[in-house]
Amino acid sequence: MAQKPSIPKGTRDFSPAEMARRNYIFNTIRQAFHLYGYEAIETPAMENLSTLMGKYGEEGDKLLFKILNSGDYLRGVNMSLIDAGDTAKLAPQLCEKGLRYDLTVPFARYVVQHRNELQFPFKRYQMQPVWRADRPQKGRYREFYQCDADVVGSDSLLNEVELLQLIDEVFSRLGIRIIIKLNNRKVLAGIAELIGAPDKLIDITVAIDKIDKIGLDKVNEELAERGLSAESIAALEPILKISGSLEERLCKLADVLKSSEIGSLGVKELKEVAETTMALGLKAELDLDVSLARGLNYYTGTIIEVKAKDVEIGSITGGGRYDNLTGVFGMPGVSGVGISFGADRIYDVLNALNLYPADAKGGPEVIFLNLGDKEAMASLRYVKALRQAGVAAELYPDAAKMKKQMSYANDLAIPYVAIVGESELAEGKITLKDMAKGEQEQLSIEEMVDRFKA
Amino acid sequence: MAQKPSIPKGTRDFSPAEMARRNYIFNTIRQAFHLYGYEAIETPAMENLSTLMGKYGEEGDKLLFKILNSGDYLRGVNMSLIDAGDTAKLAPQLCEKGLRYDLTVPFARYVVQHRNELQFPFKRYQMQPVWRADRPQKGRYREFYQCDADVVGSDSLLNEVELLQLIDEVFSRLGIRIIIKLNNRKVLAGIAELIGAPDKLIDITVAIDKIDKIGLDKVNEELAERGLSAESIAALEPILKISGSLEERLCKLADVLKSSEIGSLGVKELKEVAETTMALGLKAELDLDVSLARGLNYYTGTIIEVKAKDVEIGSITGGGRYDNLTGVFGMPGVSGVGISFGADRIYDVLNALNLYPADAKGGPEVIFLNLGDKEAMASLRYVKALRQAGVAAELYPDAAKMKKQMSYANDLAIPYVAIVGESELAEGKITLKDMAKGEQEQLSIEEMVDRFKA
Repeated sequence: MAQKPSIPKGTRDFSPAEMARRNYIFNTIRQAFHLYGYEAIETPAMENLSTLMGKYGEEGDKLLFKILNSGDYLRGVNMSLIDAGDTAKLAPQLCEKGLRYDLTVPFARYVVQHRNELQFPFKRYQMQPVWRADRPQKGRYREFYQCDADVVGSDSLLNEVELLQLIDEVFSRLGIRIIIKLNNRKVLAGIAELIGAPDKLIDITVAIDKIDKIGLDKVNEELAERGLSAESIAALEPILKISGSLEERLCKLADVLKSSEIGSLGVKELKEVAETTMALGLKAELDLDVSLARGLNYYTGTIIEVKAKDVEIGSITGGGRYDNLTGVFGMPGVSGVGISFGADRIYDVLNALNLYPADAKGGPEVIFLNLGDKEAMASLRYVKALRQAGVAAELYPDAAKMKKQMSYANDLAIPYVAIVGESELAEGKITLKDMAKGEQEQLSIEEMVDRFKA
Repeated sequence: MAQKPSIPKGTRDFSPAEMARRNYIFNTIRQAFHLYGYEAIETPAMENLSTLMGKYGEEGDKLLFKILNSGDYLRGVNMSLIDAGDTAKLAPQLCEKGLRYDLTVPFARYVVQHRNELQFPFKRYQMQPVWRADRPQKGRYREFYQCDADVVGSDSLLNEVELLQLIDEVFSRLGIRIIIKLNNRKVLAGIAELIGAPDKLIDITVAIDKIDKIGLDKVNEELAERGLSAESIAALEPILKISGSLEERLCKLADVLKSSEIGSLGVKELKEVAETTMALGLKAELDLDVSLARGLNYYTGTIIEVKAKDVEIGSITGGGRYDNLTGVFGMPGVSGVGISFGADRIYDVLNALNLYPADAKGGPEVIFLNLGDKEAMASLRYVKALRQAGVAAELYPDAAKMKKQMSYANDLAIPYVAIVGESELAEGKITLKDMAKGEQEQLSIEEMVDRFKA
């Protein structure tokens, strides 16, 4: 009868200790979202498959978790698809729902569906899990949380500035030193225009990205392999050689791209975002990275990526501006800009740097040992008084051996153990033991409440 | 191209206003859980179907949302099941995963899978959505949250006492007046034994439950229709006629059941739980209800159900003790007791009674209007100062018409509007408008920060 229990590949259980740390991250992000005027929404885990399909490319369609229809799911299915083994075409007949793949498409669907109830600009955040049928590997899960903040219905670059401040706020609070890399889709378009290779944008950015590692010559070799003409490669070289401070690089980039209208507009936007943000003061380092091309088919303006300075890990936050998020759902012309915090990677960074505050642990502050019925009843009154004062307290429920109760307190890393035995009962006192220091003293309940509230 | 967007039947989007209210409920429950020493865990949305199937009865198996296997999901499928249209047998071949149906089975799976990492008694809470392919109807959803707290690995009735206090704590904090109904599975077993109809337990409880509405005679008629003998009905009558205070009823019940060993044990447990809880003080009303039979196949001791006093709605919290939660996963003999708060019904009760505190709304405290580049830049500095002081503040991102900006602030119910125009800029002042009172005054940023912090 008994099964050996397990969970699906690529999914995780979170223990109390892990949850305490994760909640510290989520709460920090949530508090910052509120401080910046973003409001929460939630959307269902399941969306209609028609909402999700075709939004993430052909590969993405395969990575959607699809939910078998309830009831007689074979009714109306085209049996020839089964005979042909055409699982791709068959799936939408067996399944009309799927698990959300990200928070962006559900958000776009939400905005369109509720357009008449919303005030624009609409600033929303959303912190929910998403599911992807990716091959599980280290650091890549089939269920993970996304923490997104977006503003839709405003073209203003002040939204970008606010999101950069928000990123700065979150990582300052978490104590993670970061570098924020900026780019602009229009700059990339300008570069492609300039070198006469608009169809090679991805090849260009992939190659450029390696310049620090492999050097200019190797990058040029790779560009040639990727089909760029000698003229294009020569035209690109001045851009790759741009150096200096952020301000200087923006000036030089403006000069190189001056013949491209769209490229010039991109540089102008970058300058405005960077200058306004820096004028307001930023703890993070702000940098320009013309190789940055996250979600190229998707972003239309600013592109943002955040890296941790002290830990080797991929981007821990990213985002950008999109001009047509809701177009696919029949509501064109809504510009938006958003960022997404990668909670799982932030968790890894905090673990690597051991940056959790002491109170990012769960469990009670104090446990009363259970020395018998009468003592337990007195202890329960003390526990009640502590809880009324906001102190997390509990009584060990069974009158087990003292040693067992002490080792329970120890294993759960409960900071204080309270003992009410016969003599304490007679004197109306509590023996309080500081588990870290190993010291103990006798207190009244009033003194104990005061101690913990302080 | 454009699709009219919608969401699956029985699922919901939650707007910022709804989320603020829901989070108020979740936070209240979560804080109480922490105060009582319960720690959070989370389990994946998807469990192996083998973990879920057979745990909720045949009907429950049908109500599980099953997830189509990735890749070539037809491989290895028994094609004769397709030809026969045997969707029930076919489903586990197409799907090896399903969405969790409740938090109890995943918790049992968690305890067994992580038994070597856990300290017992293990006190955990879990607040996550569950999914059921139920027919959607008013107040019944296909995705909804459960908020569960359980203690496993302890027989002590003090766990029941603590959970009753926890229920009292949550509903006191929410301002909902409740009645907590208690019963005990052993009392029900004793009654069945007494009247010689152990197989009619469900029929008995269903009929007894109506006594207040239809009276004793009609209940007896119904019991006869349900196949109880005249002798059994006569033997049951003294139990139905028990009246008086909780203490009196417990005494009379003990007397009626004195010939049944198991029934007497049940009454003893009920008395101990009720007396200890009342000795410690309870704001809620505590009541005995021998017709209470929630999850009859499941609970082995105490049964708990909570009803709101001031709103007609089903039970808003329930729970009980189970002696063999983990047995099905190969770990017998682990006793536990738990409760589950019904967040959706609590939401309905709070709405009906309009019990939300004023701050259970999202959105910023103050919005600065945008009167142009220079004014916006000054305003951004003020916004930053306010945020640094922990005040949720924002700037309207576009220099739109004043009227449009004001109506935005109004529609979002932002309490204060701050205006920095040319004259304010010259004087280093901010005009602050109280939207509720319609009053306005001029302040420096320091004065404004002090005002909001106060």
